[in-house]
Amino acid sequence: MIGQMNESGFGIKGLGWIVGVTMAVSVSAADPLPSWKATAAKKAIVDFVDRVATEGSPDFVPVAERIATFDNDGTLWCENPLPFQAIFAADEIERLLPDHPEWESNAAVQALQKRDVAGLSANHHKGLLEILALTHAGMTTDEFDQRVRDWLATAEHPRFNRPFDQCVYQPMLELLTYLRANGFQTWIVSGGGVDFMRVFADDVYGIPPDQVIGSYGQVKFEMKDGKPTLTKTLDTVFIDDKEGKPVGIHTFIGRRPIAAFGNSDGDQAMIQYTTIDNPRPSFGLIVHHTDGEREYAYDANPKSSGKLVTALEAAPGNGWTVVDMKNDWTTVFEAKP
Amino acid sequence: MIGQMNESGFGIKGLGWIVGVTMAVSVSAADPLPSWKATAAKKAIVDFVDRVATEGSPDFVPVAERIATFDNDGTLWCENPLPFQAIFAADEIERLLPDHPEWESNAAVQALQKRDVAGLSANHHKGLLEILALTHAGMTTDEFDQRVRDWLATAEHPRFNRPFDQCVYQPMLELLTYLRANGFQTWIVSGGGVDFMRVFADDVYGIPPDQVIGSYGQVKFEMKDGKPTLTKTLDTVFIDDKEGKPVGIHTFIGRRPIAAFGNSDGDQAMIQYTTIDNPRPSFGLIVHHTDGEREYAYDANPKSSGKLVTALEAAPGNGWTVVDMKNDWTTVFEAKP
Repeated sequence: MIGQMNESGFGIKGLGWIVGVTMAVSVSAADPLPSWKATAAKKAIVDFVDRVATEGSPDFVPVAERIATFDNDGTLWCENPLPFQAIFAADEIERLLPDHPEWESNAAVQALQKRDVAGLSANHHKGLLEILALTHAGMTTDEFDQRVRDWLATAEHPRFNRPFDQCVYQPMLELLTYLRANGFQTWIVSGGGVDFMRVFADDVYGIPPDQVIGSYGQVKFEMKDGKPTLTKTLDTVFIDDKEGKPVGIHTFIGRRPIAAFGNSDGDQAMIQYTTIDNPRPSFGLIVHHTDGEREYAYDANPKSSGKLVTALEAAPGNGWTVVDMKNDWTTVFEAKP
Repeated sequence: MIGQMNESGFGIKGLGWIVGVTMAVSVSAADPLPSWKATAAKKAIVDFVDRVATEGSPDFVPVAERIATFDNDGTLWCENPLPFQAIFAADEIERLLPDHPEWESNAAVQALQKRDVAGLSANHHKGLLEILALTHAGMTTDEFDQRVRDWLATAEHPRFNRPFDQCVYQPMLELLTYLRANGFQTWIVSGGGVDFMRVFADDVYGIPPDQVIGSYGQVKFEMKDGKPTLTKTLDTVFIDDKEGKPVGIHTFIGRRPIAAFGNSDGDQAMIQYTTIDNPRPSFGLIVHHTDGEREYAYDANPKSSGKLVTALEAAPGNGWTVVDMKNDWTTVFEAKP
């Protein structure tokens, strides 16, 4: 694959072709996935990328169609003890509560203060959405962006004692970089809030704002005092989870992915849409959280989000790769900076 | 500007830098906007691009933030005698009517058959939306895509006697190419249907599906006979017009544009959002249809869509460039292939 000019111009490989053999050799010699053990999962990834990115391969896919979609919570970063956006929301409730005494009688706020995940998750996360309403609406998009920035700069994960945006999986960071080096677009397709994720996705994952798909309420545009403002609202909420994921993919990307990466039943529709009856070669992968020591171990009965039952059952019959976090990854989190 | 490596990798300029002076000279010597006369509008465009794309310029804008948004109907292609998507819908109604006798008593269908634009446009295009409902929902996204392809391959503009996707403005095609050569992302932000525009945007404008923002009803995902399907519906319709344009921009791009191009009051909010109180240098442009001979002349009282009153009034005070189609463009439509 080294030394080809791809359709999007000159990528790493194009550079190698132009400046000579030295760089090409160094690119090919380095293992692009050093945090992945030499197990079946890694082999499946590399084999797929070779098949679709090697010109002349019968399974070659043009660069424009090399779309890869990634769930975020539990796939790119940790989702315990609660999805991080819920922790942000809880911290925001505490921060803002003195100004909002009326919140104290709110059942969702009470459930949150008791860390009653079951209560917040009941009825399709009704309580959780209500908390999001109190903490994710009524301010401008710029104000919300700043709140998330402030929180990320100060809050720490209760177990790993590091900022939440450093609780990302090193093997998945390598995978994102590896796919992009092979001409893939890497998109986030997550149930998390799009305005929340866009604050850090570029810095943390190298994924620009326009390649982040998530849940959202429609913003409201107004000229205020002669200045354009966008205010976050709860109107026309789109939930980018389960069947919402292929819907979001169609709406935002307008092309069918050829690779999809998730970790829960909420990702199953996205992986189905990507891999079943796709005229292109395709790849589906599920991160199975098997590592209670280095991270968390859960599937059918998660303490937080990330229930994984039907997607795991469906994996073998559909040829989806299942990552055994404990045995397939040499490292879980990126080294502390 | 020639010979720089930009942040997104090696574009045309990077190629010039690598392969030597010959190409760099040829790129700089050629006029990138040959269909634009040497008037104030062209000068304003070139000056802006030079300011933001020249490294070391005090107004330099990083490549990632060089977002340009374009309205489609009346800005990139003609919108008379009706917006082309309405003509597609009318042709579809005629094609499908034998199978749907119940449509004959539908007021919107009757208005369409009489080409009663006022009737279809009343109440925020209620009738038009109803026609779209009959012709843009209930089929899979693949089926709809094929219908649009079939129509584009066979239908012709009644006055210009060419396929509708050749009724595009040559000066605007040059502008799209010029902006992209200078590191801009060129996005469509149009009231037209996103699934409609994505069929031709890549071929006609060089704009990939994920950089097309338009109106849409949410698709529905289902596994049918073991296969993933997306069906077009009229649920949760998003209208990407007027205040909806900055809303769509935030939702899909997640960044504020630095350049916006439109032709009607429906584009005013987008141009306001782009140019007013933007911490970045910014540029707004309005195409004024002044050329009844080569195209159409309209503003306050268009026969079809494209009413232009308040945006034109607001242009001088906001420094927006107004293109006088008759006097600023040497050519209107691209040469017939």
